Amino acid sequence: MIIVMNKQASQTEIEGVVARITEVGLKAHLSEGSFRTIIGVIGEKKLIAELPVEAMAGVEKAISVTESYKLVSREFKPEDTIIDVDGILIGGRQLVVMAGPCAVESREQLLESAFIVKNAGAQFLRGGAYKPRTSPYAFQGLEEKGLELLAEAREQTGLKIVTEVVDVQTVSVVSSYADVLQIGARNMQNFQLLKAVGKTDKPVLLKRGMAATLKEWLNAAEYIMSEGNYNVIFCERGIRTFENYTRNTLDLSAVAALKQVSHLPVIVDPSHGTGVWKLVRPMARAAVAADADGLMVEVHPNPAKALSDGPQSLTPENFSAMMQEIDTVARAIGRSL
Amino acid sequence: MIIVMNKQASQTEIEGVVARITEVGLKAHLSEGSFRTIIGVIGEKKLIAELPVEAMAGVEKAISVTESYKLVSREFKPEDTIIDVDGILIGGRQLVVMAGPCAVESREQLLESAFIVKNAGAQFLRGGAYKPRTSPYAFQGLEEKGLELLAEAREQTGLKIVTEVVDVQTVSVVSSYADVLQIGARNMQNFQLLKAVGKTDKPVLLKRGMAATLKEWLNAAEYIMSEGNYNVIFCERGIRTFENYTRNTLDLSAVAALKQVSHLPVIVDPSHGTGVWKLVRPMARAAVAADADGLMVEVHPNPAKALSDGPQSLTPENFSAMMQEIDTVARAIGRSL
Amino acid sequence: MIIVMNKQASQTEIEGVVARITEVGLKAHLSEGSFRTIIGVIGEKKLIAELPVEAMAGVEKAISVTESYKLVSREFKPEDTIIDVDGILIGGRQLVVMAGPCAVESREQLLESAFIVKNAGAQFLRGGAYKPRTSPYAFQGLEEKGLELLAEAREQTGLKIVTEVVDVQTVSVVSSYADVLQIGARNMQNFQLLKAVGKTDKPVLLKRGMAATLKEWLNAAEYIMSEGNYNVIFCERGIRTFENYTRNTLDLSAVAALKQVSHLPVIVDPSHGTGVWKLVRPMARAAVAADADGLMVEVHPNPAKALSDGPQSLTPENFSAMMQEIDTVARAIGRSL
Amino acid sequence: MIIVMNKQASQTEIEGVVARITEVGLKAHLSEGSFRTIIGVIGEKKLIAELPVEAMAGVEKAISVTESYKLVSREFKPEDTIIDVDGILIGGRQLVVMAGPCAVESREQLLESAFIVKNAGAQFLRGGAYKPRTSPYAFQGLEEKGLELLAEAREQTGLKIVTEVVDVQTVSVVSSYADVLQIGARNMQNFQLLKAVGKTDKPVLLKRGMAATLKEWLNAAEYIMSEGNYNVIFCERGIRTFENYTRNTLDLSAVAALKQVSHLPVIVDPSHGTGVWKLVRPMARAAVAADADGLMVEVHPNPAKALSDGPQSLTPENFSAMMQEIDTVARAIGRSL
Repeated sequence: MIIVMNKQASQTEIEGVVARITEVGLKAHLSEGSFRTIIGVIGEKKLIAELPVEAMAGVEKAISVTESYKLVSREFKPEDTIIDVDGILIGGRQLVVMAGPCAVESREQLLESAFIVKNAGAQFLRGGAYKPRTSPYAFQGLEEKGLELLAEAREQTGLKIVTEVVDVQTVSVVSSYADVLQIGARNMQNFQLLKAVGKTDKPVLLKRGMAATLKEWLNAAEYIMSEGNYNVIFCERGIRTFENYTRNTLDLSAVAALKQVSHLPVIVDPSHGTGVWKLVRPMARAAVAADADGLMVEVHPNPAKALSDGPQSLTPENFSAMMQEIDTVARAIGRSL
Repeated sequence: MIIVMNKQASQTEIEGVVARITEVGLKAHLSEGSFRTIIGVIGEKKLIAELPVEAMAGVEKAISVTESYKLVSREFKPEDTIIDVDGILIGGRQLVVMAGPCAVESREQLLESAFIVKNAGAQFLRGGAYKPRTSPYAFQGLEEKGLELLAEAREQTGLKIVTEVVDVQTVSVVSSYADVLQIGARNMQNFQLLKAVGKTDKPVLLKRGMAATLKEWLNAAEYIMSEGNYNVIFCERGIRTFENYTRNTLDLSAVAALKQVSHLPVIVDPSHGTGVWKLVRPMARAAVAADADGLMVEVHPNPAKALSDGPQSLTPENFSAMMQEIDTVARAIGRSL
Repeated sequence: MIIVMNKQASQTEIEGVVARITEVGLKAHLSEGSFRTIIGVIGEKKLIAELPVEAMAGVEKAISVTESYKLVSREFKPEDTIIDVDGILIGGRQLVVMAGPCAVESREQLLESAFIVKNAGAQFLRGGAYKPRTSPYAFQGLEEKGLELLAEAREQTGLKIVTEVVDVQTVSVVSSYADVLQIGARNMQNFQLLKAVGKTDKPVLLKRGMAATLKEWLNAAEYIMSEGNYNVIFCERGIRTFENYTRNTLDLSAVAALKQVSHLPVIVDPSHGTGVWKLVRPMARAAVAADADGLMVEVHPNPAKALSDGPQSLTPENFSAMMQEIDTVARAIGRSL
Repeated sequence: MIIVMNKQASQTEIEGVVARITEVGLKAHLSEGSFRTIIGVIGEKKLIAELPVEAMAGVEKAISVTESYKLVSREFKPEDTIIDVDGILIGGRQLVVMAGPCAVESREQLLESAFIVKNAGAQFLRGGAYKPRTSPYAFQGLEEKGLELLAEAREQTGLKIVTEVVDVQTVSVVSSYADVLQIGARNMQNFQLLKAVGKTDKPVLLKRGMAATLKEWLNAAEYIMSEGNYNVIFCERGIRTFENYTRNTLDLSAVAALKQVSHLPVIVDPSHGTGVWKLVRPMARAAVAADADGLMVEVHPNPAKALSDGPQSLTPENFSAMMQEIDTVARAIGRSL
């Protein structure tokens, strides 16, 4: 249930409602907007139904929510969520670009990549230190050594760091290095991991599962938010279909749908979304036109030599060209790079 | 096989090559570019292999094509195909917009729709006179009466007409009214119908089948072209996936891929592609940013009262807003409405 | 709407109800069971709603049907439909096996195949004379010459003939040779073709479209039945999914579901359904265990030399082994070969 | 690489080969068959290529394996793997049935379910103590309390216990109660969890991911085996497709394919695989006919009151009927219940 407070509701009234909610064993989540406060009530249906909400002081109305997700919904929070990562805003008028190699391979490769993407205008460096790989015999990442290299790249370039966390055990170490924690597609329904990152104070970039419906994705974000971490960013990265010309089918309608259903920012990964570098630039432009809040793109100094995902990585030249193109498209729809 | 002629090859030499091809029982298709002529050779593999191409006067080289489609490929014709429909160009710098109701329902509804889309800047009126419907008991269209109404709307507004042809028997009557023949998704592999429209002199808009791969779609176009009709327009309209928030999953990466693999124009139908009118505007913008050559959109004076596809039809106001938005995006990438 | 007549309803009462239905412009379809008659009423919803059914003599009750298919449903006809093809029953206790090459290639190949499948116990010879092929340059079948060869094989072996009809124009010629008309997957929603075979007196084997839902498939059968041809056989042949180990994903749950929802017979094609000959035998057994009424299987005297679909064709030895295996499984569930 | 030893190779020769493999930094996995020993070599490609295998005493030949999975393949181990769970064999001639409620809800519900499935002939009790649920607000299981109840049910009935483990942290506690550890579909590519169960001595039942290809599934099993746990059981539970009549599309061809490609046992879950209890019995029969080594089925004393998955659970009566049916089918193909 979502409780909408009066515009004039006092702090005491708000606290009173919260107290009533918690004393019967339910949880209250506050969303304080510019005009009014909205309270999400979570817990057993029967208890919620018995709550005498209309009678509480300061309450304007109660909306019963049939969907299983609440905190992620625009009903709960009508205004766009803008996440502040040390001064870089995600979800605002300005787009955010996260770029870099698929995996951290070496100090040279990472630093070279970092300067390339920094110079082209990206705000975030991406790069996997822990790599979930289909085969147990494939390169699994440099692990903590990779995190150290990412931190060094941040120091040298000023870029923020987004990197994947693959299990509960390493949430703490990854959090100590990263600015944004990434949950990969294969872990979108690893609920223990979602809860664990929900307890950190780092923003979480939540990739869509390969066969996840919009509803399941929204619920995965709800897992994170229900633990108290409200800074979740959706990342569309393609779904699995019968089409095999592309590695995945990039579902840009999901971007537009999420922006309508939820208040959270949405970014797009056209590199994994297509698996074909020649399609990355047009899909990056399309994502921006569909109102995505940013992009995550694979860039490698030398794609032909990449240890993973070479065929979908942009060269520095192509990345630069992409940045110019999306800037123009962004301006056309009233945003900017 | 594709034969590339010398830049200096004379008309006599070209005719000589064609003669050699045809006299052994193969077919020759000419593509005369600004700089050179390219000849597609079609027929039995064994015969093609025995052709002494290199020895023929005026030949620069022969490219053996392993894909089953040839005439649709950029290898065969490097320049973009621009289709001239009585002065309206499809595939050029300027975008083309085809709009109107799903089905022709009545004279009033059609004329009202026609003036709405005309005034907002569309060049084509769309509307089904023959409707392929899942159930035999659903409204099947006004048939020839519908075609007459479309012709009347053309006369009153100057809009060109695009309308679906659903079987070989009605190709001739539909051709006598329409400016562009539409092949629907369910008929993308109705090969007899493809051959039949391939024998007409009307451009053909070929919608993608609901589960068609890019290759199958290219081959469907090849069926039309192999009969002599080179004016084929691809129309992406969404593919069937597990996601059920949208009616289909609009595959914009197919647009970018087609523009690379083929020389034919590509337009996008965000109405069927999403099935949700709220997603049509962002997807229309995204399609343009992905370099689509135009859009096909459902517009209805009163979507709530439409006999079919109401939930995905735009109101006149929304259509107008869409036109302004795509104009801005088009200009951002060097094109225009 | 479905009208259930009293068990004691007289012929006059039944005719009276039918007369009332038709005089207001609706259509009546009779299903005369052993115990009672059921009348399907088809036409405009508004007219149906106004029909004073309860007041008509002999009527027990009226069931309003919200699904768009009626004649195919078990509600309309509770007993299994058993189709009699000149003494061979499809849908009864005994299974029916349709086997032979993908395409009719030559007299020798066809006759050899025919004797092989006859000797192993099949009742039907399958073989395409008209072949719908993805590429316009692939072998398109021997056409009427192929039909003549099929007829000759029937004469020599006593096998019944099932062969595909691909367009309205050839329905009449194919009907003059075939015992059962096959509608291929690509034509499952070629509604004009469905109507055309619905007007013949030949049983129709209706393959499932590659991305057709159960509902769409049921509606396709309804198209045929609504024209008066009640002898429709469903044929599951796999759907298109992300899995690429198999050519398609054979959906045996559709067999079980159809047997519950509809009274029509259902057979399974494990050759197209998997595309891998090594999987044909286990899937044939599984189909029989799932209560399929028969199988359609590709057999070729020499699969390595087949002009099409070699990799999924059984050798004569494997086909023989398959026949023995399905006989044992059939007996285990109270049926037989 | 897979090294096939001579039939006469001595123990000393085998140890010699293993020593050479490990001293260059590679790993050796032994498979000792009745006739000969096969050694899987795992590690860096370059090191493997440099290994002078042919020169080693006792070696018959070396097979280079291009697939990323090795230990799971029939090339590595030609004989079927039969897993012994305290006297119950999985993968042998006799089928194994795992049945019970989706979730452990209470002592009464669990014990009642246990006696029902025991009396009908099942060997394993299934039931979730830790439940991965799409929504954070749905019932998440009784956790360790649930494990205790499962242990009590085992004591009272003699049934073995199979139950899901959802994260690395609880692998140890679940292992201390369960006879077989289940990895759920959502965790099929939770590689840390796969490695963790690979280090236990409990057999692992590995469900297929909702959009997992056969190759990815085989690789997931390889993750477990590469840690030393060779007792892996595949469980097909349906894949996600466009069809929405069923909850998933049960892919029985995967069963047949796995039995050919791998030596590991394969069981089928027709409850999740269809999501419709009316389809469970025919699909159970079909699975057995396709040569599955067993079934996992949801049974609930009162499906209408189940806290989760009621619509797909069998009543005790239906479960009993299913057991009789699959026994007959099993005998028809030379196996038994």
